Amino acid sequence: MQITILRLGHRIFRDQRITTHCGLTARAFDASDMTYCGEKDEKMEDSIKKVANAWGDVFEVKYEKNWKQFIKESKNHGKTIVLLTMYGIDSHSIINELRSKEQLIVVIGSEKVPSDIYSFVDYQVAITNQPISEVSALGIFLDRFFENKPDKKFENSKIKVVPQLRGKKTSNQS
Amino acid sequence: MQITILRLGHRIFRDQRITTHCGLTARAFDASDMTYCGEKDEKMEDSIKKVANAWGDVFEVKYEKNWKQFIKESKNHGKTIVLLTMYGIDSHSIINELRSKEQLIVVIGSEKVPSDIYSFVDYQVAITNQPISEVSALGIFLDRFFENKPDKKFENSKIKVVPQLRGKKTSNQS
Repeated sequence: MQITILRLGHRIFRDQRITTHCGLTARAFDASDMTYCGEKDEKMEDSIKKVANAWGDVFEVKYEKNWKQFIKESKNHGKTIVLLTMYGIDSHSIINELRSKEQLIVVIGSEKVPSDIYSFVDYQVAITNQPISEVSALGIFLDRFFENKPDKKFENSKIKVVPQLRGKKTSNQS
Repeated sequence: MQITILRLGHRIFRDQRITTHCGLTARAFDASDMTYCGEKDEKMEDSIKKVANAWGDVFEVKYEKNWKQFIKESKNHGKTIVLLTMYGIDSHSIINELRSKEQLIVVIGSEKVPSDIYSFVDYQVAITNQPISEVSALGIFLDRFFENKPDKKFENSKIKVVPQLRGKKTSNQS
């Protein structure tokens, strides 16, 4: 299963940290890459790339000017478009169906979601019908999708955590 | 089970949106309240209160100057201190034990976590041993804790979502 995140409406000033957190969450939960629209932001791209470089595996961040074009092309390639939104149907009722798809584009908005997005998506999926956060909605969606066991290997990492009940321990990888 | 979120090191300029997203996620996933330290930020408090007011239920946001004092007093009242951190042990291995506690304080850091926090906590719990985000870590922790079924009623809401596969529908509550 290949999952691509599509982050809409990125604004450098307001969204730099939020979009970075979305990218890092997506990377750790086995999404393949993230494409973002809005303002091009090399600093945000770099901060995600730096983490991937140190902590392992490849996670690409790409900029795309035209989200409609991106979605249309994705659909032409047989990909399924899932919009995470509080207006959608409960993820539990649809997640099995989504697992049967070959490739997903998981769309997350920023503060204002374009009003015509709804006609471009295949499914609107909600992580609660309450206002939460695109960061937690994405994390919870991926966690539920992979049944709490994302299977990412984090190959070629330079550093690894040695889990501790208290305190901080890491090991450098040769 | 009463769960309080303790957000450390809030900075108005950098963390306003991230802390707001933590508060909204906590509210939707059945935490009782959030206490934050760092810089006092009435705008952030207001934005969470406004959501709670429109979408139902009470969710308190409180400011606390001294996190050590807060943790010490919480411990004196028999509460269990859980730090969410990538350095901790896998949440799956400990979550049953945590469910048996009476009250939890779930601590989330901002960019720099105070280096002596580790001696104050009962458990360090990781949502993956990878850098992700305090927003998604908190959401995933609460979602796993409540077994994907947070049982919050959102009483006295002024507005409710009518879930849709496509499009946006809400109903006003009388």
